[in-house]
Amino acid sequence: MRVAVIGANGGIGRELVSRLADAGHDPIGIVRDESQFDAVRDRGGEPRLGDLEGEFAPALEGADAAVFTAGSGGDTGWEKTLLIDLWGARRCVDACAEYGVDRFVAISAYNASEPLSEPESLRPYWVAKRCADDYLERSSLDATILRPTRLTDDEATGRVSARFEFRDEGGDAIPRADVAQAVVACLENDGTIGETIRLFGGDTPIENAIRPDG
Amino acid sequence: MRVAVIGANGGIGRELVSRLADAGHDPIGIVRDESQFDAVRDRGGEPRLGDLEGEFAPALEGADAAVFTAGSGGDTGWEKTLLIDLWGARRCVDACAEYGVDRFVAISAYNASEPLSEPESLRPYWVAKRCADDYLERSSLDATILRPTRLTDDEATGRVSARFEFRDEGGDAIPRADVAQAVVACLENDGTIGETIRLFGGDTPIENAIRPDG
Repeated sequence: MRVAVIGANGGIGRELVSRLADAGHDPIGIVRDESQFDAVRDRGGEPRLGDLEGEFAPALEGADAAVFTAGSGGDTGWEKTLLIDLWGARRCVDACAEYGVDRFVAISAYNASEPLSEPESLRPYWVAKRCADDYLERSSLDATILRPTRLTDDEATGRVSARFEFRDEGGDAIPRADVAQAVVACLENDGTIGETIRLFGGDTPIENAIRPDG
Repeated sequence: MRVAVIGANGGIGRELVSRLADAGHDPIGIVRDESQFDAVRDRGGEPRLGDLEGEFAPALEGADAAVFTAGSGGDTGWEKTLLIDLWGARRCVDACAEYGVDRFVAISAYNASEPLSEPESLRPYWVAKRCADDYLERSSLDATILRPTRLTDDEATGRVSARFEFRDEGGDAIPRADVAQAVVACLENDGTIGETIRLFGGDTPIENAIRPDG
């Protein structure tokens, strides 16, 4: 499967490019800057330029699926949350529809289901993610939305817990590498189409955890 | 008509409460702080407390229509744009559905139709307004969306120009008082239900300008 990774230079994106290549897929790593091309190639991906605030859609040419894992990050202002995490995500959905990329996996956030959750400082982020998710859900794409809890840079464990329902006690932190592996598992399991899956650290092998009956 | 004005202490909201009262309607002025109650009463409105980030929905009790003219304003950060202009607006739509308030007029912004318009500095705002508008459009409410161009505190003229289609050359600034009058005109004309209307300064009497065939 040719999978366009949007945000291929991010924490999850880098892991995802590697894992897609390892699993025999053909990752396309979409980045904003040519200086990031070598890093994408080193991980087995085909680098392409795409700017979520500018020219973007042609970078999807030939892709079978797209994964949105771009984020404005914690060091930029909330205006970038609006422009990248929300509007950029919507533009990706539109671009996929335009280019016939039918399969879409979005990396959302745990409390996008309830944006006014604690801590208050994260509420604006959850609003943006929720609104992006809603747009994707209403689109024509075959979508899976992953809502991981707090992300860490810990080693992959190959195991997570997943819930398809709201779990208000929150959940354990999850390594970005395990989120990346969950994306691969979703792309390889059409049963996840139309599902919104909360992910947190846990004990279930990833391939089992993301099954709708898992 | 009992009309709940959400953001009754804002520039448009204050004008709107007065004009609704003058036109024989019963405005309910929803504000965040009891210190604003007297100002609402002075304009002929019934003041109620409502917090768009907290307890809000009960303030709509008994209303026939609601007007969303709350805004985080230019002096707050973009996080408030996400929390008030976007999520607060969505909460209002949900609250209206819950309380049986079927008619809704939203004050949006001119370039919500094309959020990546110039100037770049306003793009995050247009993203928030657009996403709020989209949510309203998909709701069950009888909605009218007004998208005024740059707002001024000039005297009311009683005249505007309105376009139902995109007009890429922008438009002339418009007094807040004329936007408020356009809201009253929309509430009194069911032909505006389901319409998104761009408003700018002009020469057409407001009641005529907001007609779908105007």
